[in-house]
Amino acid sequence: MSANSRITTRFLSAGRVAAMVAQKGLAACLEGLAGYIEQDFRRWHAFAKTARVAHHSGDGVIELMPIADDEVYAFKYVNGHPGNHRFGLSTVMAFGVLADVATGVPVLVSELTLTTALRTAAMSAVAARALARPGSKRMALIGNGAQSEFQALAFHHLLGIEALHLFDTDAAATDKLLRNLQQLGLRARRFASTKEAVRGVDIVTTVTAAKINASILTPEMIEPGMHLNGVGGDCPGKTELPAGVWRMGRAFVEYEPQTRVEGDLQQMPADFPVTELWQVLTGRAEGRRADAEITVFDSVGFALEDYSALRYLRDLAGELGVRDEISLIPELPDAKNLFAFIPAPDPAGQGLPRAA
Amino acid sequence: MSANSRITTRFLSAGRVAAMVAQKGLAACLEGLAGYIEQDFRRWHAFAKTARVAHHSGDGVIELMPIADDEVYAFKYVNGHPGNHRFGLSTVMAFGVLADVATGVPVLVSELTLTTALRTAAMSAVAARALARPGSKRMALIGNGAQSEFQALAFHHLLGIEALHLFDTDAAATDKLLRNLQQLGLRARRFASTKEAVRGVDIVTTVTAAKINASILTPEMIEPGMHLNGVGGDCPGKTELPAGVWRMGRAFVEYEPQTRVEGDLQQMPADFPVTELWQVLTGRAEGRRADAEITVFDSVGFALEDYSALRYLRDLAGELGVRDEISLIPELPDAKNLFAFIPAPDPAGQGLPRAA
Repeated sequence: MSANSRITTRFLSAGRVAAMVAQKGLAACLEGLAGYIEQDFRRWHAFAKTARVAHHSGDGVIELMPIADDEVYAFKYVNGHPGNHRFGLSTVMAFGVLADVATGVPVLVSELTLTTALRTAAMSAVAARALARPGSKRMALIGNGAQSEFQALAFHHLLGIEALHLFDTDAAATDKLLRNLQQLGLRARRFASTKEAVRGVDIVTTVTAAKINASILTPEMIEPGMHLNGVGGDCPGKTELPAGVWRMGRAFVEYEPQTRVEGDLQQMPADFPVTELWQVLTGRAEGRRADAEITVFDSVGFALEDYSALRYLRDLAGELGVRDEISLIPELPDAKNLFAFIPAPDPAGQGLPRAA
Repeated sequence: MSANSRITTRFLSAGRVAAMVAQKGLAACLEGLAGYIEQDFRRWHAFAKTARVAHHSGDGVIELMPIADDEVYAFKYVNGHPGNHRFGLSTVMAFGVLADVATGVPVLVSELTLTTALRTAAMSAVAARALARPGSKRMALIGNGAQSEFQALAFHHLLGIEALHLFDTDAAATDKLLRNLQQLGLRARRFASTKEAVRGVDIVTTVTAAKINASILTPEMIEPGMHLNGVGGDCPGKTELPAGVWRMGRAFVEYEPQTRVEGDLQQMPADFPVTELWQVLTGRAEGRRADAEITVFDSVGFALEDYSALRYLRDLAGELGVRDEISLIPELPDAKNLFAFIPAPDPAGQGLPRAA
């Protein structure tokens, strides 16, 4: 960067990211995101990792999730408000920032509401590629809310899942998911209960919304060789799989210190064995060891995935020629003369008098 | 908020805030900010306070500073890169966000580079109104960089300071400050050393930039009744006042747990007595007790001041009719149907086929 160079902060609005995804194609975006996530998880030790900083209130939680390597700093702002549907608002909304570690300049501000759903699905697929039985064809999708289409698409395109078994306690959510999947040409079928939906499948994805300690799956539903993709148990007091299910399989997590507090794992003893996924992706730990083994991925969403997603969006914007900007940082001819950035007041206004 | 209401995120660019300040007037803005800060410090216990989350690198630091009361959540992104002048960039750049605690919606995104300089000066004036000798007329300003004009203006307009004694090791910085102050009609004079600049003044403001343990003031320079406004010692390894000066007076801080680590206070024993400023502003602790007493305000900058500043900017934007927005959060007819936010791909494009 040369002296007095322009300070560029790229901006990707919610509508812009949606248009970029439509233009690039959902399958290509999920594949791209999965590739960036795998790449970043393989260089796990390059990152300064912090637990997220959460502010809890009676209505929900607001979190900041920072992470950085030597060159790029990223953070995500994200909320979780289970009652937001009463206001016509999403439960989860998010945006994020990439900044230059060498100078602190924020180089990208982007929506991350839609992107979080995409990166969560891509992360689930990355985990399942390492953990699910090769040749998996059938997946149950328990919880048919805002994230379910993205999970279905990621597993269809990235793992070859051909049939989706759907269940939600809210029939309207399943109606919506069925309609969206049919438009995409995906094979999906509604079941009357979780028990019926999971029978005979290779993979079970749970992505339910209630903030309770639930038992979405119970031990008698689990069949040998199943991979469980637990997405909905992601904050204190919110779990989907009871201890009995956890004890049937081997557990995999994104970042152990965070998952012990926020994940489904919060209900298990502190010494319950888990494997961090980066170890599997780098060959330091085994993923699935046998066809009959039961594997469980306890997905809570880690800042590194948002780092990868922001990096992907930045590169995709470049590829598609998107050049939107916002002026967030003053551009100063003399960095020590911040004061000169304030224009002389309108003579008719209330400003301080300043001589020419 | 009613169902399907619009999601409005107001946006205040760097240029927009500068224009708002020019229109409202610098004196009025500093007075307004000081009022909001005092108001918020007086309801200290209404806030959930967190130490800032810092990422340190060889070149500098990037920090997130969150805070919230029951209704409003705020955070600031801010960097500190002492070598940025080599690239024509400011040492400190910042932006911030206000969000609705009840729903998590980010309602305001604003520049905070210029605003941080204004709120820091307003905070210094709030402290000095409680701590400096009544009728103070002369202030030394040691360190004449990007923040110095704002300190000068705040003390002139909010405390009645009539004469400014300037010193900086960089003569060009003093040239610039003198020029800016003359344009504003303020009385200022250059001195050849800190020792000469501080002789006979009521208040000494130190706002130097070097990231070292410095002794800008030494005990023999300190006169009875002086108020010391220490602004530049604000991160580990960066101090301005040696222990001998600290032991001459009574120390006041914004938020003790943060100042013990980041402030000039970092060099003092953990049991060195300090008073948090909110206690003085609410009458729970004494400020200045005698004309001859020496008082020291160890300013590091606390998240609550940014909360106050963002609140002030939001209200000022309303008053001035500023209505700029960015579309950060998707607006969904059905909050559970995030997928429908992605437009059908251009038939000529690469997107997934979707039936009508």
